[in-house]
Amino acid sequence: MTDVVGIGNALVDVLSHETDEFVEAQGMVKGTMALIDTERAETLYAAMNPAVEISGGSCANTMVGLASFGSAAAFIGRVRTDQLGEVYAHDLRAAGVQFDTPPATDGLPSGRCLIVVTPDAERTLNTYLGASAELGASDVDPDLVASASITYLEGYLWDSPGAQLAYRAAAARAHEAGQRVALTLSDLFAVERHRETFLELVAESVDILFANEAEICGLYETEDFDTAVRQVTGHCEVAALTRSERGAVILRGDEVHVVPAHPIPGGKLVDTTGAGDLYAAGFLHGFTQGYDLDLCGRLGALAASEIISHLGARPETNLAELARPLLAGR
Amino acid sequence: MTDVVGIGNALVDVLSHETDEFVEAQGMVKGTMALIDTERAETLYAAMNPAVEISGGSCANTMVGLASFGSAAAFIGRVRTDQLGEVYAHDLRAAGVQFDTPPATDGLPSGRCLIVVTPDAERTLNTYLGASAELGASDVDPDLVASASITYLEGYLWDSPGAQLAYRAAAARAHEAGQRVALTLSDLFAVERHRETFLELVAESVDILFANEAEICGLYETEDFDTAVRQVTGHCEVAALTRSERGAVILRGDEVHVVPAHPIPGGKLVDTTGAGDLYAAGFLHGFTQGYDLDLCGRLGALAASEIISHLGARPETNLAELARPLLAGR
Repeated sequence: MTDVVGIGNALVDVLSHETDEFVEAQGMVKGTMALIDTERAETLYAAMNPAVEISGGSCANTMVGLASFGSAAAFIGRVRTDQLGEVYAHDLRAAGVQFDTPPATDGLPSGRCLIVVTPDAERTLNTYLGASAELGASDVDPDLVASASITYLEGYLWDSPGAQLAYRAAAARAHEAGQRVALTLSDLFAVERHRETFLELVAESVDILFANEAEICGLYETEDFDTAVRQVTGHCEVAALTRSERGAVILRGDEVHVVPAHPIPGGKLVDTTGAGDLYAAGFLHGFTQGYDLDLCGRLGALAASEIISHLGARPETNLAELARPLLAGR
Repeated sequence: MTDVVGIGNALVDVLSHETDEFVEAQGMVKGTMALIDTERAETLYAAMNPAVEISGGSCANTMVGLASFGSAAAFIGRVRTDQLGEVYAHDLRAAGVQFDTPPATDGLPSGRCLIVVTPDAERTLNTYLGASAELGASDVDPDLVASASITYLEGYLWDSPGAQLAYRAAAARAHEAGQRVALTLSDLFAVERHRETFLELVAESVDILFANEAEICGLYETEDFDTAVRQVTGHCEVAALTRSERGAVILRGDEVHVVPAHPIPGGKLVDTTGAGDLYAAGFLHGFTQGYDLDLCGRLGALAASEIISHLGARPETNLAELARPLLAGR
């Protein structure tokens, strides 16, 4: 029995601290994700400060968070048979996530995400997809998808040729087996690149939608959050809309839950990388346990607060233990 | 003009948090370094928790510390043309360290050090040397050595075939050019494996010796620190003997300086990896600036306190800025 299976980009994060001037000089848009090619990856990396390598990838981060909460999580994603690919597989399995996608034996090297963290703790992503771009329908294990209560996909993956087919196949299989499909919009630019197909997907195949304020407004081409909220209601069963330090709004039918952000452990915001990923982990853990939406939201906020208190997007604290006070009596 | 050129193992650190039971079950001796082969590296890595990759290598850490203080530092060490080798070269150069040793185009992959950090913040090292083991005299640039005020070697390197010859050649070249040679004993087990040749080296070729209490006692086969202190005096020009939280004792001829440890920034001991490496960086920076030995020791203690306040052995704070209060008026 799998609680959640995630399909997403397999990326090793390469994190460095840089100034705002660096972000500007490199032509980046702070807080967003840009897809970069080999040449740009080399130029940018050469310009970056000394870095730290930590396994990442938005959807995989969520699966690690789920495992840390005690959920049974699996990941489908593509690396190559190289050193970064070995690191990636090790870190997922060591975190308790089932990972059986065979590594590619030829083609591009394993993907990486060059992440620039500015003094305000904001992260700006530059993704070299590498082997991850070749993920296709044949990588999706239909039995795994059918066995999972929720199949979870990241919007970032939508940029990969083949991945749209893979996702449609997975969503069909999940629904056929009576299971749910969840999607995170991932990034404002991803939404803008793929608005039409995202809208179609949300209406037709998505049961649980995650988005931040900019993304949900981008999806419905509005600058007003309340307008976006009205539009998304009815397009999917559940929507969890995050608003950074202002908490989140969770919608289901007529229900509206406004859940505040959780205080940051240690009080210091260090690096926002993975905040959305871990919010989804906490929320989905609660959801698969059958908790009410308010508690799902609180678990999401708790996990997000842990991840932004340190560098990198994989939890450093056992989330099940961290959640114990919230779950007391259950 | 180079202030310090270091010759050492080129290793990417792979750090994970583990329990004391894990250290015991894996047959490790806490706080020491063990050389491991490919098979053992694979088995141990598979058993380890999710990890973080940060460029390391004792001597290279010292060179990065020197560059952070504002010294001109260069490193000689051997990686392969692979992903970890690229990461290694990037991080050194991005830290401002000159690194011109060409990567090996065949043979073993780049070396790594599997580091287990226990809840008491102690680190236990398991080194897979890989390409680093093949470092030889031909990798040593004689002009670089002749131009550097100090040539610095790590005792760990003594285990590599060829490295002893490389070091003797470098020491001879340095002295011929009127420069100094420094050595760190690195590890109690390294001392025990190579006591005879270390004793010979210290007496014949080493001007500045770094060692912790266990290592200096091991070198002179005594359990009494004061006995070791008496023996080392006269064997080399300067000896800096570190004693963790009890500070350090620095000796030169009749001079004896007892320098206390520096308080840890943030007050929390997180990971002792690199404490000795960064002590040497601060000390050597002061020494090449012509500061008195007491101030050299204080700079060493300052740099060590920074490195043990976070995970990994490369500084996260600019050491020149951190040292400003200590150097006020100079």
